[in-house]
Amino acid sequence: MRTHMNGWVQVAGLGPGNDAMITEDVRTALAEATDVVGYIPYVRRVTPRPGLTLHETDNRVELDRATHALRLASDGKRVVVVSSGDPGVFAMASALFEALEAGPRPWLELDIRILPGITAMLAAAARLGAPLGHDFCAINLSDNLKPWSLIEHRLRLAAQAGFAMAFYNPRSKSRPHQFAEALDILREECGSDRLISFARDVTKPSEHLTTVTLAEATPNMADMRTVVIVGNPDTRRVGRHVYTPRRAV
Amino acid sequence: MRTHMNGWVQVAGLGPGNDAMITEDVRTALAEATDVVGYIPYVRRVTPRPGLTLHETDNRVELDRATHALRLASDGKRVVVVSSGDPGVFAMASALFEALEAGPRPWLELDIRILPGITAMLAAAARLGAPLGHDFCAINLSDNLKPWSLIEHRLRLAAQAGFAMAFYNPRSKSRPHQFAEALDILREECGSDRLISFARDVTKPSEHLTTVTLAEATPNMADMRTVVIVGNPDTRRVGRHVYTPRRAV
Repeated sequence: MRTHMNGWVQVAGLGPGNDAMITEDVRTALAEATDVVGYIPYVRRVTPRPGLTLHETDNRVELDRATHALRLASDGKRVVVVSSGDPGVFAMASALFEALEAGPRPWLELDIRILPGITAMLAAAARLGAPLGHDFCAINLSDNLKPWSLIEHRLRLAAQAGFAMAFYNPRSKSRPHQFAEALDILREECGSDRLISFARDVTKPSEHLTTVTLAEATPNMADMRTVVIVGNPDTRRVGRHVYTPRRAV
Repeated sequence: MRTHMNGWVQVAGLGPGNDAMITEDVRTALAEATDVVGYIPYVRRVTPRPGLTLHETDNRVELDRATHALRLASDGKRVVVVSSGDPGVFAMASALFEALEAGPRPWLELDIRILPGITAMLAAAARLGAPLGHDFCAINLSDNLKPWSLIEHRLRLAAQAGFAMAFYNPRSKSRPHQFAEALDILREECGSDRLISFARDVTKPSEHLTTVTLAEATPNMADMRTVVIVGNPDTRRVGRHVYTPRRAV
């Protein structure tokens, strides 16, 4: 198999939704691309132009999509894989490297770059104030790719470490009870006064932000379009804002 | 005290160093500002223009700088506080809310916004591949604002949780031994084969990336301009890249 070495793949973060949060690096990559590959709603954020082929794929097939992008690049195409948020945070970058690892050996020589973007938890934190202003962790609450028992273990240790926490994919129709279990664990480990924020459709016109205590939190405050942020023991409100001080004891 | 309600403060993330990673939101804020406040090297990244006053301050006085920005806004100025990376991650946003909390009550009505940027760990992860592609945590290793014992506790729990980890401020001249202690804890908790990456001056012309095992890691691989990323048990190399698979067992 021959690999054309003038092809490339760039996995680009489109940010959480508002185009004003896209970096110039990502705009430049899109301007130079011959092909854009991605999940339908992300590809639809790219303006069509002559010479640019748009490949829309379904969400369920990250690995196929990544393999498709690598194959196009090995044929000499300049391929942008579009990802929401930051491709390195629960998005397409890891899937691309999984496909690279499973693919033919010459692909290892391809020019592959990851272009960071504004990930949902940091966009949500900014809109809320600064709840992630001290040590924190990011956990994907979906059990598609790991057992629920591991998620519970991580929630407990993260709480015991005093981390603020950001949760991606907190709740879906296929697993409605798990987020309720996560809230129970958090109440047990953090107490009922701890602040928890729900940021839905962050930076989009439909954006909705809610901050309550763990005692007041209910599972239906989250869905798959929500990022959830749990404060650390010092997280507090000041005016309309929620923030975590830099100092800890 | 009277507060002019047409003033505002926006705390803007300039990203890790390369201006092509700045978002349009941040460019717009800088174009509309009357005053820019920040640590000297960040203010120097802003192009001077008539009608814009640049206020350069020393790094040690985050709280004074934040108070100064709020005072200017309450006098009716449009103030951008410039921050490296993302202001919400070990940067100026929390300091601003601390100053707001300590300040006069009318300041609570001020128009305050945080504009996210590309934080150093996500820029470093992108340059390396996708080492933060699964659950991860971010820890500031400086003991300026918390006791070293708390940092040790967090390192152990983060390792036991199986998080990938990103460290900010890993090492300074004033505390040369602590990063060596952190490496000892990591070797104890994670084993000597775990991958660790050092990203210095990420996205700048002087950028330098190194990935080794914990057995090979030495304290002098890090300084205050380095972000350190430790993989999780599944983090591996593929070609020139380092990545963490999406799946965990």
